[in-house]
Amino acid sequence: MTFRSGRHFLQVPGPTNVPERVLRAMNRPTIDHRGPDFARMATEILKDLQWVFRASGPVFVFPSSATGCWEASLVNTLSPGDKVLTCDQGYFADGWRATAERMGLEVDIVPGDWRCGVDPAAVEDKLAKDTAHEYRALLVVHNETSTGITNPLAAVRQALDNTGHPALLMADAVSSLGSMEYEHDAWGVDVTVAGSQKGLMVPPGLGFNAVSEKALEANRSAGLPRSYWDWQAMRSFNEDGFFPYTPATNLLYGLREAISMLREEGPETVFARHQRFAEATRRAVNEWGLEIYCTDPAKYSSALTAILVPEGSDADSLRAVILDRFDMSLGAGLGRLKGKVFRIGHLGDLNDLMLAGTLCGIEMGLSLAGVPSSRGGVAAALDCLSA
Amino acid sequence: MTFRSGRHFLQVPGPTNVPERVLRAMNRPTIDHRGPDFARMATEILKDLQWVFRASGPVFVFPSSATGCWEASLVNTLSPGDKVLTCDQGYFADGWRATAERMGLEVDIVPGDWRCGVDPAAVEDKLAKDTAHEYRALLVVHNETSTGITNPLAAVRQALDNTGHPALLMADAVSSLGSMEYEHDAWGVDVTVAGSQKGLMVPPGLGFNAVSEKALEANRSAGLPRSYWDWQAMRSFNEDGFFPYTPATNLLYGLREAISMLREEGPETVFARHQRFAEATRRAVNEWGLEIYCTDPAKYSSALTAILVPEGSDADSLRAVILDRFDMSLGAGLGRLKGKVFRIGHLGDLNDLMLAGTLCGIEMGLSLAGVPSSRGGVAAALDCLSA
Amino acid sequence: MTFRSGRHFLQVPGPTNVPERVLRAMNRPTIDHRGPDFARMATEILKDLQWVFRASGPVFVFPSSATGCWEASLVNTLSPGDKVLTCDQGYFADGWRATAERMGLEVDIVPGDWRCGVDPAAVEDKLAKDTAHEYRALLVVHNETSTGITNPLAAVRQALDNTGHPALLMADAVSSLGSMEYEHDAWGVDVTVAGSQKGLMVPPGLGFNAVSEKALEANRSAGLPRSYWDWQAMRSFNEDGFFPYTPATNLLYGLREAISMLREEGPETVFARHQRFAEATRRAVNEWGLEIYCTDPAKYSSALTAILVPEGSDADSLRAVILDRFDMSLGAGLGRLKGKVFRIGHLGDLNDLMLAGTLCGIEMGLSLAGVPSSRGGVAAALDCLSA
Amino acid sequence: MTFRSGRHFLQVPGPTNVPERVLRAMNRPTIDHRGPDFARMATEILKDLQWVFRASGPVFVFPSSATGCWEASLVNTLSPGDKVLTCDQGYFADGWRATAERMGLEVDIVPGDWRCGVDPAAVEDKLAKDTAHEYRALLVVHNETSTGITNPLAAVRQALDNTGHPALLMADAVSSLGSMEYEHDAWGVDVTVAGSQKGLMVPPGLGFNAVSEKALEANRSAGLPRSYWDWQAMRSFNEDGFFPYTPATNLLYGLREAISMLREEGPETVFARHQRFAEATRRAVNEWGLEIYCTDPAKYSSALTAILVPEGSDADSLRAVILDRFDMSLGAGLGRLKGKVFRIGHLGDLNDLMLAGTLCGIEMGLSLAGVPSSRGGVAAALDCLSA
Repeated sequence: MTFRSGRHFLQVPGPTNVPERVLRAMNRPTIDHRGPDFARMATEILKDLQWVFRASGPVFVFPSSATGCWEASLVNTLSPGDKVLTCDQGYFADGWRATAERMGLEVDIVPGDWRCGVDPAAVEDKLAKDTAHEYRALLVVHNETSTGITNPLAAVRQALDNTGHPALLMADAVSSLGSMEYEHDAWGVDVTVAGSQKGLMVPPGLGFNAVSEKALEANRSAGLPRSYWDWQAMRSFNEDGFFPYTPATNLLYGLREAISMLREEGPETVFARHQRFAEATRRAVNEWGLEIYCTDPAKYSSALTAILVPEGSDADSLRAVILDRFDMSLGAGLGRLKGKVFRIGHLGDLNDLMLAGTLCGIEMGLSLAGVPSSRGGVAAALDCLSA
Repeated sequence: MTFRSGRHFLQVPGPTNVPERVLRAMNRPTIDHRGPDFARMATEILKDLQWVFRASGPVFVFPSSATGCWEASLVNTLSPGDKVLTCDQGYFADGWRATAERMGLEVDIVPGDWRCGVDPAAVEDKLAKDTAHEYRALLVVHNETSTGITNPLAAVRQALDNTGHPALLMADAVSSLGSMEYEHDAWGVDVTVAGSQKGLMVPPGLGFNAVSEKALEANRSAGLPRSYWDWQAMRSFNEDGFFPYTPATNLLYGLREAISMLREEGPETVFARHQRFAEATRRAVNEWGLEIYCTDPAKYSSALTAILVPEGSDADSLRAVILDRFDMSLGAGLGRLKGKVFRIGHLGDLNDLMLAGTLCGIEMGLSLAGVPSSRGGVAAALDCLSA
Repeated sequence: MTFRSGRHFLQVPGPTNVPERVLRAMNRPTIDHRGPDFARMATEILKDLQWVFRASGPVFVFPSSATGCWEASLVNTLSPGDKVLTCDQGYFADGWRATAERMGLEVDIVPGDWRCGVDPAAVEDKLAKDTAHEYRALLVVHNETSTGITNPLAAVRQALDNTGHPALLMADAVSSLGSMEYEHDAWGVDVTVAGSQKGLMVPPGLGFNAVSEKALEANRSAGLPRSYWDWQAMRSFNEDGFFPYTPATNLLYGLREAISMLREEGPETVFARHQRFAEATRRAVNEWGLEIYCTDPAKYSSALTAILVPEGSDADSLRAVILDRFDMSLGAGLGRLKGKVFRIGHLGDLNDLMLAGTLCGIEMGLSLAGVPSSRGGVAAALDCLSA
Repeated sequence: MTFRSGRHFLQVPGPTNVPERVLRAMNRPTIDHRGPDFARMATEILKDLQWVFRASGPVFVFPSSATGCWEASLVNTLSPGDKVLTCDQGYFADGWRATAERMGLEVDIVPGDWRCGVDPAAVEDKLAKDTAHEYRALLVVHNETSTGITNPLAAVRQALDNTGHPALLMADAVSSLGSMEYEHDAWGVDVTVAGSQKGLMVPPGLGFNAVSEKALEANRSAGLPRSYWDWQAMRSFNEDGFFPYTPATNLLYGLREAISMLREEGPETVFARHQRFAEATRRAVNEWGLEIYCTDPAKYSSALTAILVPEGSDADSLRAVILDRFDMSLGAGLGRLKGKVFRIGHLGDLNDLMLAGTLCGIEMGLSLAGVPSSRGGVAAALDCLSA
């Protein structure tokens, strides 16, 4: 591997830049996960996570990627053959749907357009038609990382309420939690799925399920086989600050520190910071003459921006040039978007000059890779950042 | 929490002391798990793991605890209602059995005595009776961490061969791998389950399945639902150095370093070192007048020693005194052994003086906690270590 | 202290950004500085330092800042009342001169203009007049960190040779070593003074004296009192890989790693990289309509750029705005340049996007602080970096 | 280098084991030493150091080893040809004396016996004879690291007071500060010399001078040349939280954390812990049948124990066996004690089991190296530690 001076620019939409504070916190001896010091730490973290998720119910932490917690959300609440409703909204929604299918659930889909995200009216329509209330759960990705779209969860909740539909509302907040407003309780979410490596700024390896009373109720009669993901064992051990099996202790050290950082900065400041970065990025994109993938400005994500390259250009070649020449990683187009889209992660432990450097790298990369585009994106972004 | 000077003595039988080299290796920025640097690292690790497991087939790495890989071993190879044979050998064997039951498998048990470990003759007897070959898998814990017993896997393999039984041989090597001889291929194991936090000296959070050709064959027709644990997706992504979902990158950094350490010390040296520690520990136990839980010297574990406290004494009180007074964590008696047994982990990144200090702490603790015992254990151990 | 997300931009001209690799290398236990492992490490480092300084003679390492090594250079070679010749070239040259005066030496000065740096002809003139050869040493700062000027050491050497003057040539390479070409032997330097925290990318705390045969000769009869800085004791201990007193072991760990990095990147690549950064920076400055302090383009430093703010503006207010708003530290104007100049360090562990981010911060800061200037500096720099 | 499993036992009397907390604190980016964050930190540290030294006057921190601060103590207070009184008490006292001689001071010596330490009566006798008050300073090593003797500083102060002698009292507290009681003000010390790498648990590279009003007064007229060590510049910069030249920032991070640890544990607890370790060590030595070098029990050091090996044995061979076989470093006999003495450091970040392991290593090493000695030392120490 060629020597690289300076710091890599990790601008994929997760994993995000792990703050030194978090790495430092992890850089300590693993302790006995059955001892009193561990119990004190875990108890504190589990309580703090409720604050992070804005949830009054339990938040379960698994040694797993967030993907595992998709599975956990399903096997804990549903029975073989149960019907779930999902949305055609992007690559990760597809992944969750595939998980449901593999688990033996029957899946129905709210049709949609990946560029517009979830339409609550279409959801409501679908729910209204399900007069028999066969859908046991509705699966929605809050911030779809493949498209850069933040979906209106509160409105989706409203769709359920309007139709009096009893389905559980399950939301994937993997790339929104910690970067933008997220309200587990207030939005009436029953199971929130999340992971450690995005807005929470911790290396990957922890997955989360925040769970409502209603979901716990469903858990009691859920028939899908489960062992590792079982909420009941988790809940019972968690009561004393323990876990049913060996937890990922050093990642928990990191999580504790990351939560401290969120508290210190303050969620409002964190969210506003991400909005500023997103706005500056979009201004750059516009100035470059490129197209933002999301066509509904009300749903622009503040965690990442997905950008279409012009016909005839290849987004992956652009990314390769930028990686090779400027040591910066950008997100690839996923699934059907491969080669058509590149994604800028602007979430997590980032500041104005890191974002400015990122945009500089893209502006230079567009030129070096021969992607038809105008200059001036960086200048526009600087105007925005220094406003 | 009271201030503690010096280093904690972590002498539970896992997680083990994470070497500074491993912590340091983890203390670096998370990188893009879809980029070329990651692929190079993962490819190297996956190959090295074959060397560690002594396996020519694939080794799958999950962001999970080892417990999750019990589940992975089952859902990847079996179908609902399949019959598996397990052994009555200890707390962790019970755990794996419970996992099988929760997954919807039918479980039969080779009766046994926790203090003697697995009797290959009894296993053979059971297999011989299964003329219909209904057992699809035989589950054995190689080194049972609750009892301090290492079971003769090669002899168990022989039992299968003697009876011509086609059941898959699945072994839990969680607390043996990296500390004592383990031969996935040579012993004819079909699925080996392991984790990062014991002999591999990495913090918890990675689980492993080493898999034979026969297990891969079984995988093709296995009917249990699976998604997160799916070997096929894993195998397909691993071919290019990637994973189907976000891997626990920083733990992989640590694993890479730990494998380097195993190579540098050399497996023979590592294994001999553990045998020396175990022998010195047993001499101390004998001198103290305490009883080793394992009653078959041929099966003494070199990774840990489980010790019975005399009737009338409480092992947990002893452990509490030692933790409080000497800042050392020892393993508790698990399940039916609670309060009756304590366990000394002497595996992983340990040397003679660390072990000596450990035994000193126990010798003092026995006296302070009023456990009837003789002095002289440390002296006997020193004789052994300096021989 | 207000919470700051993301990474601080440390763009003072030293200490420079310490690479994670170096921090990680330091993050290990201090060892016995009288033991064999230490001796092996020190022997290796001392040899490697000769490669870094391009010196065949010894390089002495002191637990001290570079400032201490100014003192070391003098007390090891001179006697009370000896005459030394210095140049009027900047704040650090003044500091070295003051050190000489405090040590009881008589100082003569080659007149000069801080904005032009050292004029070899003026030096030669001064030397030629010293027919009695009273000057025992000529002190020159190679890269004057206060002015951003790199002085022509080879030409200064020529001035000594032309006049046949026997004075020792002493050079301060504190901010050039490791960032730009430096040739201790080839340029006929007798004592080179350097420190750990600039081009060598190590935290501050190590000072260096690279020493010629002629300087060692002078050392034998030098009459200034010395103990801590004494080369003879150092040399005698160094022979076996030891030091006369406790060395700064952990900083040495860092130094060893930093030298590895210099080897991996290759000095030519390192120097070219710094030239590219400097050129891009100057293009930005020109576009902003600001004035580079150095008036002789042949002497532009590739390690830093000192920039005049327009009359009526205050460089320190600008720096304060940038620190407050963008979490970036820039160098202040020193001594008589206070408030008139700010300095951009572009040396050490830096890459294109870090530099781009830096220039973005300045462009925005100029506007926010109301310093009369044009936009477009960043765009010009990007043109240069992507050329 | 052979692979070594587990942790090295660093039991030299300094550098001591650097706690992970301190290493972790150092493992962060170097910051601008002219910026506000640095000033806040330095101001806090300088105040905390007064608490550590029990000094109301300033404590100066140099990027240097403690040895450099011997020089600093002299050049800041004395003039060429001044007379100082030192004590014949050990290797480090000799070193300070040699420094004084090299600096051009005239040195007189209180005769003494290295095995008994400083006799205040002999000091008083010497002072009384100096009716002309020619001695400008009295130099005493508080805890002589070469002999394992703690000298009665308060009684030495009394000797000065009894004779009404105005000499400055200078004390080397390098190996006592942070491990045992030390009272700069209450004992009337004028200059205390110390370093970072012993009781303060920080890697080497920081030296200290704690200074009384009287010493500051002497500073004003002191005629020895000085620049790097100059207190006045230091004091003037320190007022605002800065230093006259680049400080060793990362070591200061470590120092800040180490002081926090001293506060958390509490000085009384720290001192009692060291006394316990020293007592247990001496009991082991007695049981081994070896001789403690210090012949005056009232002066036994609680930071280290120096032990004579029997005639015919070589202490360095013993140390080599122990290093090779048990990966433990012990202190060598220094100067005239070479080969005759080995030294056990039991100071700094140490606990009972670390000490127990240390003594186990020595007990085994004595046997392996064939040093005539009895067993039972460890047992005696355990009796003491568990009392």
